[in-house]
Amino acid sequence: MKTSRNISPFLLSGAILISMGAVAQMPARTLMPNDTLQSPKVLADKRVMIQIYAPKAEEVSVGGDFPVGNQPLKLAKNDLGVWSIILGPLRPDYYTYILSLDGVRTIDPKNPIIKQGTGSLENIMALPGPETAFEDNRAVPHGEVREVWYPSATLGMQRRMHVYTPPGYEKGTGKYPVFYLLHGAGDEDSGWNTVGRAGFILDNLLAAGKAKPMIVVMPNGSMPRPSQTGTPTAQPMNRARDLFANELLKDIMPTVEKIYRTLPTPESRAIAGLSMGGFQTLDVTLSHPELFTYVGIFSSGFFGASAEEAETKYANVLNDPSFNKGKKLFWISIGKDDFVMESNRKTLALLDKHQIKYQYKETTGGHTWVNWRQYLNEYAPLLFK
Amino acid sequence: MKTSRNISPFLLSGAILISMGAVAQMPARTLMPNDTLQSPKVLADKRVMIQIYAPKAEEVSVGGDFPVGNQPLKLAKNDLGVWSIILGPLRPDYYTYILSLDGVRTIDPKNPIIKQGTGSLENIMALPGPETAFEDNRAVPHGEVREVWYPSATLGMQRRMHVYTPPGYEKGTGKYPVFYLLHGAGDEDSGWNTVGRAGFILDNLLAAGKAKPMIVVMPNGSMPRPSQTGTPTAQPMNRARDLFANELLKDIMPTVEKIYRTLPTPESRAIAGLSMGGFQTLDVTLSHPELFTYVGIFSSGFFGASAEEAETKYANVLNDPSFNKGKKLFWISIGKDDFVMESNRKTLALLDKHQIKYQYKETTGGHTWVNWRQYLNEYAPLLFK
Repeated sequence: MKTSRNISPFLLSGAILISMGAVAQMPARTLMPNDTLQSPKVLADKRVMIQIYAPKAEEVSVGGDFPVGNQPLKLAKNDLGVWSIILGPLRPDYYTYILSLDGVRTIDPKNPIIKQGTGSLENIMALPGPETAFEDNRAVPHGEVREVWYPSATLGMQRRMHVYTPPGYEKGTGKYPVFYLLHGAGDEDSGWNTVGRAGFILDNLLAAGKAKPMIVVMPNGSMPRPSQTGTPTAQPMNRARDLFANELLKDIMPTVEKIYRTLPTPESRAIAGLSMGGFQTLDVTLSHPELFTYVGIFSSGFFGASAEEAETKYANVLNDPSFNKGKKLFWISIGKDDFVMESNRKTLALLDKHQIKYQYKETTGGHTWVNWRQYLNEYAPLLFK
Repeated sequence: MKTSRNISPFLLSGAILISMGAVAQMPARTLMPNDTLQSPKVLADKRVMIQIYAPKAEEVSVGGDFPVGNQPLKLAKNDLGVWSIILGPLRPDYYTYILSLDGVRTIDPKNPIIKQGTGSLENIMALPGPETAFEDNRAVPHGEVREVWYPSATLGMQRRMHVYTPPGYEKGTGKYPVFYLLHGAGDEDSGWNTVGRAGFILDNLLAAGKAKPMIVVMPNGSMPRPSQTGTPTAQPMNRARDLFANELLKDIMPTVEKIYRTLPTPESRAIAGLSMGGFQTLDVTLSHPELFTYVGIFSSGFFGASAEEAETKYANVLNDPSFNKGKKLFWISIGKDDFVMESNRKTLALLDKHQIKYQYKETTGGHTWVNWRQYLNEYAPLLFK
């Protein structure tokens, strides 16, 4: 029984062929223009070129979280069938992008650095510069990031979380505070550690003495859909919100506090989330104000109908004058062009109405990882002080 | 400064739109045929359908490690612009596949489960059945898989490895044997834990009492290219081989034995590798026979010119009659249709000539992860007994 892998160059990219160059059995083939194509290619003056070989395509475009307009940008084709576009100058950072070939969403086949979510797949490109020092993989002591599977009684299935333990944890004996860090919709527990670069951001903060050593728990906040038939069915947001709160309180937190050397007190617990994760954070904070002393809301708020029901649902806590005393930090940030700004404003108004204190920071930009990495870098140093 | 993420559906797949359904600010749009498309779709009778919406494409094909011939298979297009193919019946397993649209290598945009390598990106599909029980994510105690960054003196850079610690390691105090498990060319340290399913295979073996608890170290065996310009340059295999041996002996093993509770003796050390990793395993074993008591070679051998030079390079060890006494296991396996069979045969002949003892198993199939997962499942129970 032969397989296509045996002899076909189909699955073997140029890089593999070259790595395996000394394997005499591989059939030789002539190098094609595509074999030496590089994408993305960092150019001078903070510009970057994206290229794809697609001689038969009629239209190729690229979208991403780089700040260059609201619409996908069209690539131009050369005589060899290579489409390209030069982006920039851009502020040095890590940007996500996705290509579209004649309307089909496509990963850049030359760039193996990708971001994987439950419903998305995007390439990542790095534009180097001093601005990225806080999120780069530098020659500092590194914590470990662990993939941890646990049985969820709430969901009746095996679930995964990513857990960052700081440098020195493995050989040490001390106990650590715990920071629960939540992702957004369409993502899963790996997001903060891949495109979010949370491990490197924490490593760099710790190496500079800017943050306290802590365990960072990155759970999977995307709840399974009611139907697993594969046909997308509307996921009622309130059902997902309640499921996640149960999962966090009854499965994730007990598992973490059982396995790791944690300081299991409110003063040693922080939480923050972006977008859907910020909504989950608000829900948990206003339902269980006794659990977390540090709270962060990134690019979020009570979305849609939940803004109206929040005042009723959380009335007890919103009207409790002791709420502020139980919080050392209630930190809210958003980009001024974020498409959820209206939800954010309604949420701030609700908090103001009930005299709940918070720190608010409005930055440039929109609903992007560029902002969320910056927010993590500002928020983490404020914890457990 | 607005970003394309703010309003464009370009980066927002159907799944995200639905997850965020209650975000009132998202512009509504009519569902397209592509929005409800499911791929891969498991059908009855061990068949699976792969689909992609590409109305303008002229030819769409799929290749993979499913055993259905040597050439990419062509998909057929329907009136809605959806291309599809039904594969099977196939033996239940996890298969990798990759699509080609008019010659452009493309990831299935409907399937977020991917395998990431240094030079490859492939989708993974699961065809469920009792045959996959050994590699499934089951309701058994799970070990942790850790991403560990360390400074490599050999390579002068930060390097990453994946480390599996068995259930009970985190709360325990005992010391464990260590199994170094190496990937193939074009891959990196995540490969054995994603498409290779090493964590789940070990979890299942341990739960069944079929293997000894052990730490499994999965290093990055792909050496940096001499030129980092992005232009592929031939990587002399011997240089990469020597670099890796240095990296393993001087950086990886000391780091592992420093961080984890290991039994740092030859009797408590095993090594195995697939393809390029098998070649690296042969090199380390015949250069440093004192290090590992258990050795596994999966779908490999001395490749190309290295087969001729092996007899000279390793003469001291090949001619040392005490070599066999230092090994409790020298396990070699390969599929009978593997394209590196010639290298394997030459290697066996060399070992035979020098009366080096080994166990040899020839299976069906070729140079595929289908085989390598099976080999791991057979090899790991033989260790540390």
